[in-house]
Amino acid sequence: MSRIYFNDVVCRDGFQIEPNFIPTEDKIKLVDELSQCGFAKIEVTSFTSPKAIPMLRDAEEVMGKIKRVPGVEYTVLVPNLRGAERAFESRADEFNLVMSTSETHNLANLRMGREKSFFGLAKVIQYVDGKVPINVSLSTAFGCPMEGDVPQEVVEDYVQRFADLGVRGVTICDTTGMANPAQVSKMAESLQKRFTNLQLTLHFHNTRGMGLANLLAAVQSGITRFDGSLGGLGGCPYAPGASGNISSEDAIHMLDEMGYDTGINIPRLLQLARELPMIVRHDVPGQIAKAGLSCDLHPAPAYVDDLRK
Amino acid sequence: MSRIYFNDVVCRDGFQIEPNFIPTEDKIKLVDELSQCGFAKIEVTSFTSPKAIPMLRDAEEVMGKIKRVPGVEYTVLVPNLRGAERAFESRADEFNLVMSTSETHNLANLRMGREKSFFGLAKVIQYVDGKVPINVSLSTAFGCPMEGDVPQEVVEDYVQRFADLGVRGVTICDTTGMANPAQVSKMAESLQKRFTNLQLTLHFHNTRGMGLANLLAAVQSGITRFDGSLGGLGGCPYAPGASGNISSEDAIHMLDEMGYDTGINIPRLLQLARELPMIVRHDVPGQIAKAGLSCDLHPAPAYVDDLRK
Repeated sequence: MSRIYFNDVVCRDGFQIEPNFIPTEDKIKLVDELSQCGFAKIEVTSFTSPKAIPMLRDAEEVMGKIKRVPGVEYTVLVPNLRGAERAFESRADEFNLVMSTSETHNLANLRMGREKSFFGLAKVIQYVDGKVPINVSLSTAFGCPMEGDVPQEVVEDYVQRFADLGVRGVTICDTTGMANPAQVSKMAESLQKRFTNLQLTLHFHNTRGMGLANLLAAVQSGITRFDGSLGGLGGCPYAPGASGNISSEDAIHMLDEMGYDTGINIPRLLQLARELPMIVRHDVPGQIAKAGLSCDLHPAPAYVDDLRK
Repeated sequence: MSRIYFNDVVCRDGFQIEPNFIPTEDKIKLVDELSQCGFAKIEVTSFTSPKAIPMLRDAEEVMGKIKRVPGVEYTVLVPNLRGAERAFESRADEFNLVMSTSETHNLANLRMGREKSFFGLAKVIQYVDGKVPINVSLSTAFGCPMEGDVPQEVVEDYVQRFADLGVRGVTICDTTGMANPAQVSKMAESLQKRFTNLQLTLHFHNTRGMGLANLLAAVQSGITRFDGSLGGLGGCPYAPGASGNISSEDAIHMLDEMGYDTGINIPRLLQLARELPMIVRHDVPGQIAKAGLSCDLHPAPAYVDDLRK
């Protein structure tokens, strides 16, 4: 039974765009509960400027108070050298660097061009100097909502350049849910062939309903690492009302039903997903929290017994 | 480029469980607009007793007033001999018969056991006598929300028995969204091998988020005919709050993006999906109506131009 590894990103990627501040103790509790569910990795927070993302201004406190479970990697977003210093101090297990493969998206999101981002991140990698494993998340790798197509060669070029700098892994992100399964298979096969020593993770959004189909295509192509977000939180400012990240519980439930080993305690994860709307104070897109697991049975209506006689 | 054929079931399967009566003229207009989108088949209504399903009490009027487009098949649900008489009078292109492969679900839904349903439908088939093509929709073929697993042999046995009676096609229905892609592949491959002369259609629900992943698995296994419901309308009383049928527009958009020929005018379909909430007076689950097509571009924020300089 193949093993699939999940990284839950709700506490960083999910919470980051939430309108109401989530109390620090709720964040710590959620990370601890995710640890108990059996996630391989948890993206805990971001060492961005507290002014830029007030929601994650408690990064140090959260990292200092979570209960670290052996076998779970606690990763953090590191935007620059200052972030790397803070991440070192907080003893993160992995630093996750981010840039876009689309020039316009990088300008819109990070307020600088791709080359400036690349060289900034290269400095972070040099500074970290192999002391902590580094992952790079490449945004809009399957298309940019402002530019349209992002050629696969452009994505592969950035993967190559970061691989040359010695990063451990790269996450290929479908930031606004533009990927389709055929495109995913093509990308996944090519990257695995070319970068045999790199940890490859795929990050899908369900903006256009294709999230789990893309996950399936990636699994069929041999990818074993995925990002997911509890409840499907996290979204896309270009598609208000649409879903965001694929829901961890929906994705994991599907793979479990197919016979994959996700390492996750699914009833526990489902319970957590059902508590999430209370934490964020609104409904969330995840489906199995509403519908139950495929194996959850319902009683037959009372008249069925009479009819049977 | 492979051709995929879609049957939109919103006017029957979707509307059937809507709480507010949808005016007859809205139904007629919607069928006519679906015809213009290029659907291969449209399930227009049901010739059930008007008392049992008041929503579809206008079946004759709808069938009498729609504008039939050559190349589009107008199918209707036929529950019994009386329904078949009415369907003949209304000149339906296909009669769609329904029963469950789970005993408990058949009792709950049709208030009789499976064998009684089978022999009732056999009488309808005999009465129709080849004058109109017949399709049989087999419910809960991937699992029953009350019994749990439905063995594939049981499903195949019913397919065999209906094939022996000379039906043209069979629709394998995941009535409450319990199917997973591995199960779908196994079912699709086995049925296609065994029933080479039967028109096979798959009908998925997105109750647990797996709808388009299941569609992908079926397409990969060679299935070319699918049911979908505009907006993802139609649902499952056992999963309140969860999605119902796969959304025609989301499914068709995905296959189109992958390079399949769906025969559908997608911008026109998207427009129709965006009008649907006005017809049913509530939000609907379909995603691309909210998010737009993958190829719909958005303007970059104004500061991007300044940054570029």
